[in-house]
Amino acid sequence: MLWFFYIIYSNYIKRGTYNMANVTILGAGAMGSALTTPLRKNGHNVNLWGTHLDTKIIDQLKKDGTHIKHKCKLEDGINYFYNEELEEAMKDADLVIMGITSDGLASVFKKAIPYLKEGMVVGSVAKGFEYDLKDKDKVIILPDILEELLPENLVGKIPFVFVGGPCKAVEVVWECPNSVDYASKDIEAAKYMRSLLVTDKYNVGISSDVIGLEICAAMKNAYSIGLGMAEGFKELDGKLNNNCKAALFTFAVAEMGVLTKAMGGSYSSVIGQPGVGDLEITCEAGRNRILGEVCGGGMPGTKAIKKMRDEDITVEGYNAIKFAWELIPQLEEKGVLDRSKLPFLQALYEILFEDKNAYDTIVKVMNKCTGFDYE
Amino acid sequence: MLWFFYIIYSNYIKRGTYNMANVTILGAGAMGSALTTPLRKNGHNVNLWGTHLDTKIIDQLKKDGTHIKHKCKLEDGINYFYNEELEEAMKDADLVIMGITSDGLASVFKKAIPYLKEGMVVGSVAKGFEYDLKDKDKVIILPDILEELLPENLVGKIPFVFVGGPCKAVEVVWECPNSVDYASKDIEAAKYMRSLLVTDKYNVGISSDVIGLEICAAMKNAYSIGLGMAEGFKELDGKLNNNCKAALFTFAVAEMGVLTKAMGGSYSSVIGQPGVGDLEITCEAGRNRILGEVCGGGMPGTKAIKKMRDEDITVEGYNAIKFAWELIPQLEEKGVLDRSKLPFLQALYEILFEDKNAYDTIVKVMNKCTGFDYE
Repeated sequence: MLWFFYIIYSNYIKRGTYNMANVTILGAGAMGSALTTPLRKNGHNVNLWGTHLDTKIIDQLKKDGTHIKHKCKLEDGINYFYNEELEEAMKDADLVIMGITSDGLASVFKKAIPYLKEGMVVGSVAKGFEYDLKDKDKVIILPDILEELLPENLVGKIPFVFVGGPCKAVEVVWECPNSVDYASKDIEAAKYMRSLLVTDKYNVGISSDVIGLEICAAMKNAYSIGLGMAEGFKELDGKLNNNCKAALFTFAVAEMGVLTKAMGGSYSSVIGQPGVGDLEITCEAGRNRILGEVCGGGMPGTKAIKKMRDEDITVEGYNAIKFAWELIPQLEEKGVLDRSKLPFLQALYEILFEDKNAYDTIVKVMNKCTGFDYE
Repeated sequence: MLWFFYIIYSNYIKRGTYNMANVTILGAGAMGSALTTPLRKNGHNVNLWGTHLDTKIIDQLKKDGTHIKHKCKLEDGINYFYNEELEEAMKDADLVIMGITSDGLASVFKKAIPYLKEGMVVGSVAKGFEYDLKDKDKVIILPDILEELLPENLVGKIPFVFVGGPCKAVEVVWECPNSVDYASKDIEAAKYMRSLLVTDKYNVGISSDVIGLEICAAMKNAYSIGLGMAEGFKELDGKLNNNCKAALFTFAVAEMGVLTKAMGGSYSSVIGQPGVGDLEITCEAGRNRILGEVCGGGMPGTKAIKKMRDEDITVEGYNAIKFAWELIPQLEEKGVLDRSKLPFLQALYEILFEDKNAYDTIVKVMNKCTGFDYE
């Protein structure tokens, strides 16, 4: 009889909304550490593990609970782990959240694999494209990377949940209201992850559209560089170009729709938080916009990106443009895309990689995209 | 034989892209006067007529060509007319553009009616809702007002063209690139108006969706007040709420879609320049956003609007919220709308007209609208 209660009890613990779960967050950077706030507010047991790049962050967190990037204290009661303590950090996890940037995702996930067990849910905040691990010429989205890395005995047994939508990490720590989407092929897994994180401020919508969410997550960075160019034009003659920026915003949404459709995703993500919402916040400030502003102000694309790289600034949208550009022939070969439907993306590629003049090129985009048939 | 050439010639003059047309702009305010720039660049004969409110503007324009609102000179060769010179200003017009704000549109159009002739095209930059002239309890869109005012002998003989999309007037004067939509039930009329105004900077798309364009034009002001509230929250505790603003942006687009659909408009306007594009520019700055910021910062809605009115500041979005709120029962009666699909609009009404606390109300909107089924 005892085993019967045990099964009910353990299941209750695992999926129950109001019960304590064990959550391990891999990566103590801005977003990984921010998610400790709603998790601790909901009373879960939270392990925050830092990569080798996060040692100073973990040092300070252990010392006085302050996160040196967020410049404020995190919630009490979080368990902190250094890079070499991965096994301990992963022990008994119900939910593992990959709080890792796209370029580090595969390597960290590989390290975590030995500690994954059937029934665990894996969430990821990483966004974007990558080269296929099996075919270095092929561009795929990050969810495919995680699926590929999973060892045979765990295939189909570890559901993945991906996070999209506008979400500045520090505002999560501050408990400002937000709204994000959790997308998964396994809706129950997405709902489970939501049940652990959702609060009256951290709002979560559920979606089955992993592809659309990922395409938007990557491309909103790309197009925000373009919107930044309109902001940068004022360097040329002192005149604001708000009309141009707003029009480009609309074209960006349309082209995210073209790419999402070609990849097999849903338009609902494009007009939802992952698309429109995340584009809005991304074009207001940040590194993508800065790169755009610099180019819009007259600096050639290759010089502008070199300057930012010399200052150790990663511009995600720049990589997204390159990946998307390489993805186009793959999609054309499949017969699901016509590159003439992406004039804004083409312009961004030409400005950033071929040093075409930003102003003249954007003026032509405005001519071409106005009244353009994106269908 | 001569009459034959005359017909061909006069038609050519009238509809030809590269021929001089006579264009009369009624209203010398920001937008009316701005449209003189693309028209003069294209070599048309332009008459700019000022209402009784524009006398000082016309004075200065006649003196040295400077527009006192734009603080710069307009193009050379524009003919300026005072309020009492309407007949002369309207003489031989091929295109009449109503550069009048929504509250003055009907009265100015009535004055212009005696000088309208079959074959003239009438464009309008005024946007929004109004009470039906025949039924003061009924809310209708401005295009319906113009249609209603037309005397019987001109019904069906004067095509109307409506302008939507992001367009700060002064940027048109500066010749910064923009993209707007011209919508008309008579597509040829919209194309004709475009042919007179389009330049390499002033881009014009053509649309048949008058209803969607007008709904978006009005509601983008309304929702921008809500987006401004998220900006204002920083007054409460010093914390930015960019996540909230971006999420609300997405809900605003969704609700513009709900209203547009209920009114019989097209979703293409909502995700195009009149909806997404114009919302983007409107929420970045301006009077609607300011009202929202003030409420978000803690001032009760009725006090905030009184303060702005005392300073003689018209907030178009405030009126749009009221009109939309009164429109709801009309649409419910027709069975084309369920008001529960407009939670953000309801919140704005409650904050502005019933003094509900902005922060608490918006937090509830975020809870309700996340993952909300807007279909």
